[in-house]
Formats: sequence, C-alpha cells, structure tokens
Amino acid sequence: MFNALFWIVPVASVLALIFAWYFFKKMKGESEGTERMAEIAQHVRVGAMAYLRQQYKVVTIIFIILTALFALMAVAGFQNGWVWFAFLTGGVFSGLAGFFGMKTATYAGARTANAARDSLNRGLQVAFRSGAVMGLVVVGLALLDISLWFIVLNFAIPEAEAGHKLVVITTTMLTFGMGASTQALFARVGGGIYTKAADVGADLVGKVEAGIPEDDPRNPATIADNVGDNVGDVAGMGADLYESYAGSILATAALGAAAFMHEGSLQLKAILAPMLIAAVGTLLSIVGIFAVRTKEDASQKQLLSALGRGVNLSSVLIVILSWIILKALGLPNVWGVWGSIVIGLITGWFIGKETEYFTSAAYKPTRKIANSALTGPATVIITGIGTGMYSTAFPVLTIVVGTIFAYLTSAGFDMLNYSNGLYGIGIAAVGMLSTLGITLATDAYGPIADNAGGNAEMSGLGAEVRKRTDALDSLGNTTAATGKGFAIGSAALTALALLASYVEELKIGMLRLPEKAAAFTNAMGIDVSKAQIPDFMEYFNVTLMNPKVLLGMFIGSMMAFVFCGLTMQAVGRAAQSMVEEVRRQFREIKGIMEGETTPDYASCVAISTKGAQREMMVPSLLAIAAPIVIGLIFGAAGVMGLLTGGLASGFVLAVFMANAGGSWDNAKKYIEEGAHGGKGSAAHKAAVTGDTVGDPFKDTSGPSLNILIKLMSMVAIVMAGLTVAWSLL
Amino acid sequence: MFNALFWIVPVASVLALIFAWYFFKKMKGESEGTERMAEIAQHVRVGAMAYLRQQYKVVTIIFIILTALFALMAVAGFQNGWVWFAFLTGGVFSGLAGFFGMKTATYAGARTANAARDSLNRGLQVAFRSGAVMGLVVVGLALLDISLWFIVLNFAIPEAEAGHKLVVITTTMLTFGMGASTQALFARVGGGIYTKAADVGADLVGKVEAGIPEDDPRNPATIADNVGDNVGDVAGMGADLYESYAGSILATAALGAAAFMHEGSLQLKAILAPMLIAAVGTLLSIVGIFAVRTKEDASQKQLLSALGRGVNLSSVLIVILSWIILKALGLPNVWGVWGSIVIGLITGWFIGKETEYFTSAAYKPTRKIANSALTGPATVIITGIGTGMYSTAFPVLTIVVGTIFAYLTSAGFDMLNYSNGLYGIGIAAVGMLSTLGITLATDAYGPIADNAGGNAEMSGLGAEVRKRTDALDSLGNTTAATGKGFAIGSAALTALALLASYVEELKIGMLRLPEKAAAFTNAMGIDVSKAQIPDFMEYFNVTLMNPKVLLGMFIGSMMAFVFCGLTMQAVGRAAQSMVEEVRRQFREIKGIMEGETTPDYASCVAISTKGAQREMMVPSLLAIAAPIVIGLIFGAAGVMGLLTGGLASGFVLAVFMANAGGSWDNAKKYIEEGAHGGKGSAAHKAAVTGDTVGDPFKDTSGPSLNILIKLMSMVAIVMAGLTVAWSLL
Repeated sequence: MFNALFWIVPVASVLALIFAWYFFKKMKGESEGTERMAEIAQHVRVGAMAYLRQQYKVVTIIFIILTALFALMAVAGFQNGWVWFAFLTGGVFSGLAGFFGMKTATYAGARTANAARDSLNRGLQVAFRSGAVMGLVVVGLALLDISLWFIVLNFAIPEAEAGHKLVVITTTMLTFGMGASTQALFARVGGGIYTKAADVGADLVGKVEAGIPEDDPRNPATIADNVGDNVGDVAGMGADLYESYAGSILATAALGAAAFMHEGSLQLKAILAPMLIAAVGTLLSIVGIFAVRTKEDASQKQLLSALGRGVNLSSVLIVILSWIILKALGLPNVWGVWGSIVIGLITGWFIGKETEYFTSAAYKPTRKIANSALTGPATVIITGIGTGMYSTAFPVLTIVVGTIFAYLTSAGFDMLNYSNGLYGIGIAAVGMLSTLGITLATDAYGPIADNAGGNAEMSGLGAEVRKRTDALDSLGNTTAATGKGFAIGSAALTALALLASYVEELKIGMLRLPEKAAAFTNAMGIDVSKAQIPDFMEYFNVTLMNPKVLLGMFIGSMMAFVFCGLTMQAVGRAAQSMVEEVRRQFREIKGIMEGETTPDYASCVAISTKGAQREMMVPSLLAIAAPIVIGLIFGAAGVMGLLTGGLASGFVLAVFMANAGGSWDNAKKYIEEGAHGGKGSAAHKAAVTGDTVGDPFKDTSGPSLNILIKLMSMVAIVMAGLTVAWSLL
Repeated sequence: MFNALFWIVPVASVLALIFAWYFFKKMKGESEGTERMAEIAQHVRVGAMAYLRQQYKVVTIIFIILTALFALMAVAGFQNGWVWFAFLTGGVFSGLAGFFGMKTATYAGARTANAARDSLNRGLQVAFRSGAVMGLVVVGLALLDISLWFIVLNFAIPEAEAGHKLVVITTTMLTFGMGASTQALFARVGGGIYTKAADVGADLVGKVEAGIPEDDPRNPATIADNVGDNVGDVAGMGADLYESYAGSILATAALGAAAFMHEGSLQLKAILAPMLIAAVGTLLSIVGIFAVRTKEDASQKQLLSALGRGVNLSSVLIVILSWIILKALGLPNVWGVWGSIVIGLITGWFIGKETEYFTSAAYKPTRKIANSALTGPATVIITGIGTGMYSTAFPVLTIVVGTIFAYLTSAGFDMLNYSNGLYGIGIAAVGMLSTLGITLATDAYGPIADNAGGNAEMSGLGAEVRKRTDALDSLGNTTAATGKGFAIGSAALTALALLASYVEELKIGMLRLPEKAAAFTNAMGIDVSKAQIPDFMEYFNVTLMNPKVLLGMFIGSMMAFVFCGLTMQAVGRAAQSMVEEVRRQFREIKGIMEGETTPDYASCVAISTKGAQREMMVPSLLAIAAPIVIGLIFGAAGVMGLLTGGLASGFVLAVFMANAGGSWDNAKKYIEEGAHGGKGSAAHKAAVTGDTVGDPFKDTSGPSLNILIKLMSMVAIVMAGLTVAWSLL
C-alpha cells in the first residue's frame, strides 16, 4: 500500500526529535552562571510557565467547544468521523511544540549570557543550538503527526472507487491543520499582546519617565518584558510556522490527491512528494545546524555569515536532493515539480533580503527614518508609515512572480492546466519551508539572545560580557526581521494552496449530501466525483461579477484591518494597565529607585498575563466566526470572496506593519549608536516614539495577520460541508 | 428620438449654473472688511491662483500625451473616434469646476470674516452660500457635459442594429469619466501634498518650535497653509466628487443600455433614469440651499442643525420626487429601482453618521484617543491607528448591506438576475449622490470658514469676531469629516458600477475586432453582441481560482498601499523643505518674531507649489500605468483582479486613514478646549503629534485613494479594447 520511500518521513521526524533532545540536554548541561543570574532566569521561567498554563487553560475550553461542534457536524453527516480527532491532535502537537520551545528558551537565556562570559563563539553556540531545539521540535512534531495520521487513516478509511480513498484521507488530514491554526492564533495574539503590553509599559515609564536604561532591574516590568520575548517571539513564531509548515504539506497533498485522482499510482506519488521534500529538508537542516560556528574575534558581520552559512548549506543541498527524491519517486513531471520547489526557495530568499533592506540601518530607508527624527516624533511616524507602505511593493511582486512561475513550471507552461499549476503553487510553499528546521532556529535564536542580554544587564555582568551579548542580540534583530518576512511570505503561499483545497473540500461535502450531489449533476451534466476545480467555480458562480464574491472580498479586507485594530487597541489598553502598575510601584514601594528594594515583578507578570488573556478573545473568535457566518449567509462564493479579500489585504498589511515596525526599531538603534546626536538627544526621543508605535506593529498585529489568513481558510475548509448544505442567499 | 423628460437634465444643469452665478455675485457684493483683511485675502488669492496655474500646466501636458495615445488607439481600431474627445472634455469641465470653486473660496474667506463682524448668522450665510457655488458648479457642469454629449452622440453615432447604438453612446460617454478622473487625481494628490506640506511645516516650526499660535502672521508658512485649504479641500474635494457624480451616472447609464439592449424602449428609459434622478436632485439641492439659515445667538449645535435642515429637506424631497419621475418615465420596475435609490440615500446617511461617531470629540472613540495623550505621543498614535482600523467595520458593513439590498430590490430578489441587480447598484450610487449640490456645499463651506478664521487671526480682529469664526470653523471640521466618509462610500459604489461597465466595454472591444469576436463565438457558441456578463466571466475565466485573477488582486491591494506610501513620503519630504525655509526666515530675516518685518510668504507658497508638482508625478503615473501593464501581461482576468483587489483594500484603507486622521484632529481640539490639562500641557503636545500624523492621513493619502480606485477602473475601461486585442498570458 505504501511506497517504500514514505518511511523517510517518520524516520526524519524521529531523527529531528532526537537531535532536539540532544541539543536540549547539551544546553541544560551548561551552567547558569552566578546565583543572581540563575535567580533572574528563574523569575523569567516561572513567569513564562505561569503564562503558558493560563493560556492553555483558555485554549482547552475553546478546543472542547470546537471539538464538540465538529463531532456534532460528523453526526449530522457534514463531515466524516475523523475530523474532530484530527483537529484535536493538530492543536495538541502545536501546543507541545510551543511548550518545548519556550521551556528551552527560558533555560537558555542565562546559559547564553554565562557562555558569553567565556567567549562570543560559545555564546553563539549555546543560543543558536537552543534555537535549533525549537526548529527541530516544530518540524519533528509536524512530520510525526502527518506520518501517524497517514498510516492510521490508510487502515481506517475503507477502500472506495479508484482514487477516492486517498482524497478522503488527505482532506481529513488537512483538518488537523485547523487545530494547529487555532492553537497558533491564540499563541500569536495572546503572546503578541503580552509581550508588547510589557515592553511598551516598561519603556514608557522606565525609559521615558524615570530615565533608567532598558532591562534595568529597578524597573518592575522588566521581568514581564523578558517573559514576553519568550511567549511572543518563541512560542508565537513557532506555532505560526508549525501551522504554515503542516498546512503547506497537507494542502499540497490534498491538491495532489484531487488532481491525479484518476491517474492510478501517480496519485500516491503526488501525495508523497511534499512529505518527502519536507522530510529530506529536515535531515538537511540538522546538517546545516552543525555547520554554524564562528571564530572568537568574529565581527557582527561574521556572526551573521556564520548563521547564513548553515542556512545556505541546507538550501543548496535541498535543491540537489529534491531532484533526486522526485526522480526516485518516479513522478512523470520531475523537472516541472522540481522547478516549483526551487522557485519557492528563491522566493523565500528574496523576501528575506527585501525585508533586510527595508529594516536594517545599513540601508537607505531606515537611515531616512532616523534622519526624520530630527524634526520630531510626528515626522518619524509619517516617514515610517510611508516607507512601510511603499516597501510592500517588493515582497508582493516577488510572491506574484514566484507564484506565476511555480504555477507555469508545474503546469508545463499551460495556463489552463489548473490541477498541475495549483499543485505547483503548493509545492513551492513546501519548498520555501523545507529547511524550516534551520531557518526557525535562526529566528528562535533572537529572543534567546535578547534574554541573555537582559540577564547580563540585570545581573550586573561586566561591560565586556554585555558587549558580547549586545552583539548577539543585535544579530537576533536582523534574523527576527528576516524571519518575519519569511513567515508572511510562506503564509501567503500556504493560503493560496489552502484556497484550492477549499474547493476540493466543497466536493467532498457534496459527495456526503446526495441531494446536493444530484443538484450538481443536474446543473452541470457531470458527476461530482469527476468534476474539476473550474466546474465548481461555475456551479457556485465564483466569478468577480457575483455580488456575493465582491461583498465577501470587502468583508475579508475589512477583517484584516479590524483584526489589526482590535489587537492594536488591546496592546494600548494592556500597556496602560502596565504603566499604571509600574507608576504605582515607584510611588508606593520605597527604595526601588535606589536599588535597595526589589520591585514586585510578579504583579507585572500577572497584569500582562491577565491582559493578554482578556484581550485575545474577541479578535480570535471573530476570525473563527467570520468564515462560518459568511458561509451561512453568502454561501461558497461569499466564503471564497472572504478568503481572497482577506488574503490580498492581510498579506500586504502584514508586510507593511512588519517592515515599518522593524525599521523604526533599527532607526532608534542607529541613533543610539551615535547618529543625529545619539542617546538622550531630541532625535533619540522622537525615535523612541517610533519604536514604541512599531512594537505592536511588528510583534502583535502584523504577525497575527499571518494566522488570520491561514485560519480563515482552515475554518472554511472544515466548515465546507455545512456551507454546501445550507446558505441563505 | 429623445424622451421629452430628457430635457429636464440640461434645464437643471443650466439652472444650477445660474444659481451658482447668483450666489457668486451676491458674495462678491460683500465687503472684504479692513485694508489688512483685504491684503491678506489677496495674498491667499494670488498664492492659490499661482498654484492652479502651475498645476494646470503640468496636467495639460499629461492630457496632451494621453489624448494622443487615445487618438492612436482609435486609428488602430481599439476604440471609436469619439473617445479622445470625450476624455478631453471630461478633463476640461472638471478643471473648470475646480477653478470656479477655488476662485469663489478665495474671495469668500475675508468676506465671511467680515460678515461675522456683524453677526454669526451673516457669517454662516456668506460662507455656506459661497460653498454652494462650488456644489452647484460641480453638478451643473457635470450635467451639462452629460447632456451635450448625449445630444451630440445621438446625432453622430450611426443607427445600428436594435439597441446597439445606445450601447456605443453610453460607453463612449463613460470615457469622459476618465478625463474627469485624471484631472481629479492630480487635483487630489497635488492639492493634498500642497496643503499638508504647508500645514505640517507651519505647525512644526511655528507651534512646536517657536511657540506661536496657529495662523499667526509672524509664521512665514501661514499664507501657504491657508492657500492649501483652498487647493486641497475645495479644488481637490470638488474634482473628486465631480468624478464620482459623473462616473456613477454614466456607469449606470452604460449598465442600463447593456442590460436592456434587446428590450426596445425600456433601454432608453434605463439610460435616462440616472440622469433624471441627478437632475431632479440638483433642483432640490437649490431648494435646500435656500433653507439654510440660523438665528443670531445660535449655538454650534443649532448651526449644525441649520445645515442639516437643508440637506435633510433635499433628501426627503428626492425620495418623493424620484418615485414620481420613475413612474412618469414608465419604467416597469418602478418600486425596485426606487428602492435602490432610497437604499443609496440611506447608506450615505449612515456612513456620514458613523464617520461623525468615530471622529467627533462628542463620542467615546475620540475621547479615548485624547485620554491616551496622557501617556505620551506613542500611545496617541497606537490608539488612533487601532481605533481607525477598528472603525472600518461600520462603513464597510454598511456598504455591504446597502449593496446587497440595492442589488436584490432592483433584481426582484433574484440573486441570478445580474443585469437588473448591477443596474440597481449603480442607481444606488446615483441616489446617494443625487443631492450632491447641497452636500458638497456643506463640504466646501469648511475650508472657507477655516480661511475666515485665519484671516480674522492675521488681521487682528477682536476676540468676539474670532469666537464667531471659530464656531463656524469647528462646524466645518465636522462637515469635512462627514463629507470624507461620504466621498469614500460613493467612490466605492461608483467603482462597483464601473467594474460592471468594464465587462460591457470588453464586449465593445470584441465587437471592434472581428477575429476576437469569432473566437468568442467559437468558444462559447453565442454571438458576442448577445452575450451577457456571466458569459464574459466564463470566457475570460474570471474566477477566483484563476491565478491571473488572484495575482491581480494581490497587485491591486498592494497598489493601494504603495500609492499611500508614496503620497505620505511626499508630504514628509515637502514638509521638510518647508520646515527648513521657515527656520531660515526666522534666522535670517530680522524682526519677524517681534512683528516688525513681514515674512516672505511668497517663497513658502512657491516651495509648496514646487513640492506638490514634483511629488505628484510618480504616484499619479503609477495609477494610470498599472491597469495598462496588468492588462498587457495578465489580460482581462488580471485587470478585474487588479480592480477588485484595489477596491477592496483601497476602500478599507481610505476609511481607516480618514477616520484616524479626523479623530486625532478632534482629540487635539478637545484637549485645547481644556481637557487633560488643556493647551500647552504634555498631553496637548502628544495630541499635536497625533494631529500632525493625521494630516496626511485624512487630507492627502486617504482621499487620494478614492481617486485611485475610480481612476484604475476608468483606465481599464478606456483600455479594454487593447486588453482584448493583446495580452501575454
């Protein structure tokens, strides 16, 4: 039944988890340094785990409700009986990935600082390999979940007419993506609100009012701020990419199953191809991780190139090995599919470079923003927003060019060969994400280095050490910005693949409802099971002149803005409570400013936790409810309008927010390094305002949009049966 | 040939122009007050006219190039020979409307201030009736252009098979909309950059650095600032709405001609209906204008209700009279079409109210932004952006509900009755804009009152007079915000109608190219001239799973952001030059601050003019080029993706920017009136930052988006023949 090559997937997954365990153990073996360092690390750890416990409590309730809903839908015949269970495991595995990643990150902060006391190279090794734990856990768990489900469903789903069984298997597996998506939503939104409420709150009172430096132990919000780096940037980013990774593999498999349903053994090969590419990429990521090392007196540029070497090695190897694996699999269209994979990788690389250009102080755009600080905060904001909006042109055009070429190569340059073309878009997303094990390691490295810097500052380590952790941290800012561009780009491609899967899911929904299937056959003169994507477009009238589609698009576009607006406001409110709490402590607890009394860190952590939990509910539920409600009113045409409108707007909005935020951050750092009067100048104060505005842009609202566009597609996919069964208009 | 009712249209147009002339003469008969007042008014007048001269010079060159291009296309057979000429008159008439409106506004400023020395009521009368000149000139010239072309083309276009002649007439007339649109683009973008460069520049050095009040004659940029109110808010807004007004009437007429092509006399009636509604609305606007008056000791609320009374009177009367006129016209579906008109009016009313709620300091959202000023400029910006994004939900949902009901009512509640339904959307836009004569009067009133305030301040009139002009000005801010919501809403509806017209234009394009028409007949088994909208959707494959459509949407969405980004950056740059010039004058010209020397106003005016002219080129050319380039690469499917993506994103983005900007403005005013420490407090300083950021949001980038979404549709319509003839993919 299985192709022998399939077994590479579970093997790669287990190997990834073993190496994750190995890196974790090695990191745990390092010393946490002085007593003071260990104490601070303990504060952060306790805070982070308290947050995660609270978060999982809330999410569990949501999952129970949704699982019950899906079970009900299965009973009503709108879905098969495996969906609710697949949904659940997707959520659990994503939660586990977040848990392990954060656990590792909170252990690694002090250890990185301590290793940096020895040498810069040691610091880099500890931080980066701890980040690698996150990267490998994410890809390992995703591949494990995929392998297990593929095996189980192969035995559980009854044989049906030729090709149909694999279609049911792949579309069922797709719904575990919704579990991952839902978990990711709360991780991103909750984590994003947490981290920025703490950060903005700490900065506003600490830096601006009290005039004490970042990470100063006298600031009561400083522990909350460090916890935030872990819950937002580690757990949130991990859940986000877990979802893109699994989503792109599953969507491509589903597209392959549908496209080649009537082509015998080719169908299974098309399903296995994305899984195998991901599995091989995982193995190569491990190779790449071992290649990251630098000499002692490395400059920041050399540090960056050390990381780059690992990533590039994995990427070059995957280009070669993916051709071999596709050949071994015996796909007829090897060059075409391989072309799409390479295009995906190149697209991801370009987006990373573009993000770097628009956010790094080494280039003109950020310098211009720094320069505008000379005329005050208003011009910093105007220039930052202007530049951020303008910068969207490049990633969008890159995705457009990449998508069209991925489509054309896979479709043999025939624009009308939908099945192969859309499969090509999916496989390009898989290609872009194939080396996620190592790219995510470089992302997760950022907040670990950030925490190491915080720990060094709070523990009063020497200037030499602080300089080293600063170098590590500064590098982390660059990888974080690049990682964000990559996350957005992969989300867009994944969402495109999910959109095509949605149409397949409409088909499955119809096949479960005999009277709907009959109506389709009546209208189109073709059996549903034989119908192709264009037939469904015609049947549901998904053209741009259907008002249901157009109005769905309006609502989708609006959803992106409203979702951002809600999360921005949430950060504003939560930060406000934090500001008041910090002011209260400065006022009421004597001796904080003199360093004689320890501030009440725990109450600030509690405020951020409570704020994040309270504020994440409305935007999250809105994202889940929108596709259901639109489906019930406007039907499938409205849902597709919603998804494409949300995708087109949300993608551009996300790029804008990430780039503007990243650029403000680095413009401030550029001034702090001495430009335009340096620290303490009027220009610096103006730049701090820009940075503070940019915080929720780049770490809350922007990244949450990635999830929004994927989750709305996932919800639509899972609810397709209901939409087929009933809609108002 | 004509229905006798048609003659109402030219009659209404001439009456509107006569009353505009009458109000203009009456205003000119008022005194400009003291010598000092007249002198300042003269400065503003000279500056405004200098700008307009320069602007028209640049625009003339663009028009010559485009006209030549269209003439070439006519020669090549892609368009008929009237298009270039229609394009030209659209541009000239729009330019004339801007010229007269601005002429009036610059005469009215000092006269309003002088009338306010007598009494508040006199001030209101002068300002409002001067605004009415603008309103009536815009609708009068639009109806005149429409009437003339309808008459001329009726004689010029040869009789063809049944119904075809009227289709050619209406689609040709539609292209005069592109002339209006192009003119409007430069007016909005150039005017928007001008006004905000001057405003931001004047505020940054004057208010923030030198600490002198707004409109202080010692500020060298103050005249440029007052000129800006006229070129941005009067000429820009007028050209924008001229375009929506003409565009909605022409698009609806074209839809009517196409939908009822084979239904005999019904076709002409469907064409005349939008013209007649607009004509009757114009007559009623004149009635409404005469109804605006208030008693002497009127409160601000009473002032507002005085304006409201006029608008409401016109609206109620149009509801009644439009039923009568439709009945007299003998449309078979009177209740349905009338329903769409009423829905359009209601939709416009709701959007106005929602805008007021989100931007007036009388309500919670703006109060919240004012409150966040207590924690500094960063939280003002975060809260403002968050609230602005959140606020988009309401106008978008209003438009969605309005559109779906306008469609359904007109389509007899049959979702699949496209022709009637889309006609209903068009007629709803016409309904919303039917009383534009008076609604635009209330808009144009705003900058006139603003200039009156500036004049009073600069001429050193007494506190009593200044209080009166302040009351008039403050009212103007409310009507300006409402007017902006209205402009965006009507642009969205108009763009929807234009989208449908685009499909009709594809048909015309095919009819001109025999081999394309034959290919269509071959593929679809139906003659092009008989084909309906869904047939073209199928032929060009305009479904949401066509990658050309999806990628077009991405680019459309991106266009909205890039366009905004470019205009924001333009304001930043132009304001920077202004800041440097003002600083230079303070430094080099002795005695300015002591009030002993007059600053060099003219050089600031010249800087703004030059900056605006230089900066408007790139975004404007981009908007014109995008639909052409996308058409040449991706064909009709890509263009429709571009238009819908641009519309969905651009509409929401425009609402966000207008509401955030309006809200920041009023939050600042709210603090200036004494809240949170009042003028000069830290909160006030933070709020000024918000207001400065909001300036380009609400007066440059946001309003320019209205034009972008309409202009891209217009360009696509005019270029449809070329797109049909040739595309790469």
